[in-house]
Amino acid sequence: MSKKSHTVIEGGVTAAKGFSASAMNVGIRSTKLDLAIIASDREAVVAGTFTTNLVHAAPVKLCKANLAGGHGRAIVINSGNANACTGPQGMEDARRMGTLTAQALGVDEKLVYVCSTGTIGIPMPMAKVEAGIPKVAAALSPAGGADVARAIMTTDTVPKEIAVQVEIDGVPVRIGGITKGAGMISPNMATMLCFITTDAAVEQRALQAALSAAVDDTFNGITIDGDQSTNDTVLVLANGAAGNATLSAAHPAWAAFEGALRHVCSHLATAIVKDGEGATKLVTLTVTGAATREDARLAARAVATSMLCKTAWFGGDPNWGRIIAAVGRSGANVAEDRVGIRFDGSPVVRAGCLAPGASLKDLARIFAQKAFTIEIDLGIGAAHASVLTCDCSIDYVKINAEYMT
Amino acid sequence: MSKKSHTVIEGGVTAAKGFSASAMNVGIRSTKLDLAIIASDREAVVAGTFTTNLVHAAPVKLCKANLAGGHGRAIVINSGNANACTGPQGMEDARRMGTLTAQALGVDEKLVYVCSTGTIGIPMPMAKVEAGIPKVAAALSPAGGADVARAIMTTDTVPKEIAVQVEIDGVPVRIGGITKGAGMISPNMATMLCFITTDAAVEQRALQAALSAAVDDTFNGITIDGDQSTNDTVLVLANGAAGNATLSAAHPAWAAFEGALRHVCSHLATAIVKDGEGATKLVTLTVTGAATREDARLAARAVATSMLCKTAWFGGDPNWGRIIAAVGRSGANVAEDRVGIRFDGSPVVRAGCLAPGASLKDLARIFAQKAFTIEIDLGIGAAHASVLTCDCSIDYVKINAEYMT
Repeated sequence: MSKKSHTVIEGGVTAAKGFSASAMNVGIRSTKLDLAIIASDREAVVAGTFTTNLVHAAPVKLCKANLAGGHGRAIVINSGNANACTGPQGMEDARRMGTLTAQALGVDEKLVYVCSTGTIGIPMPMAKVEAGIPKVAAALSPAGGADVARAIMTTDTVPKEIAVQVEIDGVPVRIGGITKGAGMISPNMATMLCFITTDAAVEQRALQAALSAAVDDTFNGITIDGDQSTNDTVLVLANGAAGNATLSAAHPAWAAFEGALRHVCSHLATAIVKDGEGATKLVTLTVTGAATREDARLAARAVATSMLCKTAWFGGDPNWGRIIAAVGRSGANVAEDRVGIRFDGSPVVRAGCLAPGASLKDLARIFAQKAFTIEIDLGIGAAHASVLTCDCSIDYVKINAEYMT
Repeated sequence: MSKKSHTVIEGGVTAAKGFSASAMNVGIRSTKLDLAIIASDREAVVAGTFTTNLVHAAPVKLCKANLAGGHGRAIVINSGNANACTGPQGMEDARRMGTLTAQALGVDEKLVYVCSTGTIGIPMPMAKVEAGIPKVAAALSPAGGADVARAIMTTDTVPKEIAVQVEIDGVPVRIGGITKGAGMISPNMATMLCFITTDAAVEQRALQAALSAAVDDTFNGITIDGDQSTNDTVLVLANGAAGNATLSAAHPAWAAFEGALRHVCSHLATAIVKDGEGATKLVTLTVTGAATREDARLAARAVATSMLCKTAWFGGDPNWGRIIAAVGRSGANVAEDRVGIRFDGSPVVRAGCLAPGASLKDLARIFAQKAFTIEIDLGIGAAHASVLTCDCSIDYVKINAEYMT
C-alpha cells in the first residue's frame, strides 16, 4: 500500500480544474436525466478499462478504438439504452453520438468517448439523442458534476461521487469521480460506468498502469449478482490544468498520486456494492491460506455468488455450512479438515467443523449487522483474495423481475 | 437414444420384487418422518454416484467405501441433519447408523449404505437415531416406499417417485426410484438423494456404467440455484428377484434396461426442478453450435445460473439481453454476431441482434407459460448441451433466508 497523503474534498467529476459537465432529460427515459457530457477545456491524457464480456456494446468498441490514441476532450453518456446487441446500426449510432458531441464542442471526434447504460438490444432513439447533444453541450458548467452522477443512475438509489486532493511537488492536484451500479455486478469489471477526472499532468502509460492496478483491486473485487455487463467502462481523463510537472512512475510523488487514484476507485466500488440492487448488508469476504491466488479467487467468488449464502445473509442466518459447501465446490484446492472460518474475527469453523465454543446465537448477532466480515482460511498455502459483496434480498428479485417490463 | 420398450407402473422404490421400506419420526425433526430404511430380501448388486464437492458428508465417505464391494442389502437414511462438516465424530456416527441397521436386519454392515440430508455442521442426535433404527427396521414392508419418499423431503413440497417395467428375455423386471431436492441443486450432482431399486439381475460393472451415463444426462443436467451439496448421492440396488438371466452390456435387451433406468432418472431429475425451491417456471435450455462440448456446457450453465436471467423468467420478462450477456461472460468461445436465440422455437435473436419480426409482446406470452424452451445457437461448431432449470422467485429468497433459523 502507498502511504495516504491525500485528503477528501467536496465535489465529484468536475472537482478537478478545467472540467465541466452537464446532463438533461432528452426523452430516452420518461423524466429522469438521460444524456450527459463531461468535458475538459484542454486535451487530456486518457486511460480506460472495459468489460471482458465477449458480448460488448458498440460504445465499448468505440472507446477502445479511441483509447489507442491515448487522448481525449470529452465523454458523452446516455442512460436508458445500453446500445448493446444492436449490430452495425448500433456501431453507427455510437459513432454519430461521438461526432455530434465533437461538433458541438469544436474538437476532433477521435477525442470523444461514448458510453451507454440501460436495456440491451433496443435500437438507440437517435432522433432524441441527436437533438439533445447540442443542448447538453451548451449547458456545460463546472457545477454540472452532480447532475451527471444522477444521469448515469439506472437501478441505483443514490448518486455516487467523490473527490480527493493530493500535493505533487507542492502543487495541489485533484482527482474526482462518479460511478453507477447496481445490477450485473461481478468481478472482472463490475457492471458499471465510472468516470474519473484529474487536473494532474500524467504520462499516458503511467496513468493506464495506475488505473489498471487500481481497478483490479477495487472494481474487479466486487460482486453483487455474479452477472457481468456488456457495457462496463472506467475512464480517467488527466488534463494537466493543475500545472504540476508531468507525473510518471519514476516521480517521487507517484505513490501519492497512485494512492489517491486508488482511494477514488475504492470509494466508488464500495459505494456500488452498498447500493447493490436490493442489498441490505455489506459483506467483506477474505480467503487466506490458499495454494494459489487463483484458488483464493475461486473460493471467494463461489461464496460471494452463492445464492444460498447470499439469502442466508439477508435472513441474518449464520449458516456456515453453506459457506464451506460453496468453498468445496469452487474448484479451488480444498482440504475439508484444514478449513477455518471467522465472522468479524470470531472463530466459527476450525478444522472443518464448528469451532469449540462458537455460539450460533452470538454469530447471529454478527449477521444482524449492516456490515460484517467473513474470513475463510483454507490452511494450505499463503495466497489470498478479497471480494466485497452484498446479500440477496426479496427486493433484488422484485427489482429484476420488473426491470424491463 | 435407446428405443423405449418400458412402461410406467404404479409405485416407487418398493415396486421391484424383494424390496421393502419403512419410515418413522424419531425426533430428529419435530413431527415429519425423519428416519427410513430401504431393504432387499437378498444381496443386491449396487451402483452409485456421489457429489464432486470436495467438502462432503461422512455418510458419502462411508457409501463410497462400501461401494468398493459392489453389493448391498439396505440403505438407512435420515433427514433433518446432513452429518456434514462434523469431523471424526460424524464419521463414527455414520458408521454406527450402518452397524445398527445391519444388526437389526441380520446382515453384514458392509452391505448397509448410509445417507443423510439436512443442515450442515450440527452433530447427529445419535440417541434418537439409535433408538429409532430397530423400530424402523421392524416396520419394513413392501408397502413402505411412499413413506420413505416423504421421509427424505426437506424443502421439497411433493414426494417424487416413479416405477417402470421392462421385459428382459420375456421376464418382466421392474425399476423404481425416489428422490428429493430442492435447494443446493447444480450440475455435477444436483443436491439430492435418489434411491433406485430393481429386481433385475445385472452385472455390477454394467449397472455402474449405465447409472453413471444416465446421471450425467439427467441429474447432472439440472440446476436450481448453482449451489452444489455436500451430500448428493444416487444409489441403485439390483437384487435379481425377477429371475431374468443376468444382464450385461452385451445382452440383447441391455438397451431396453438402460432406457428404462434412464427414464427413471430423467423423470426424477425433472421432478426435482419442477419442485425447485420457490420455482414457478420450468425452463429447458439448449446450447447448440458450440465449438466444444465444454463450451456448450459453460454457456448453458452461465445462463441457467444467472440471477438476472432467472429473475426475468420469474417476472415473465422476455429479456434476451440478459441471456446473451450471460453467454458472453460464460468463458465459452462466443462470436457475438453469430449468436441466435429462440424461445419455444420462435426466433428472438439473429446474428447477435433482435431477430427481424420478433415481437416482445409475443415473446412475453411465451414467458408467461409454466414451461418453455430457450435454444441458444452459438453458430460456431457442432457441440451441444442441455440444462433443465427453473426461475428464481421471491419465495426462493424467503425459503432460504429462513431455513436454518
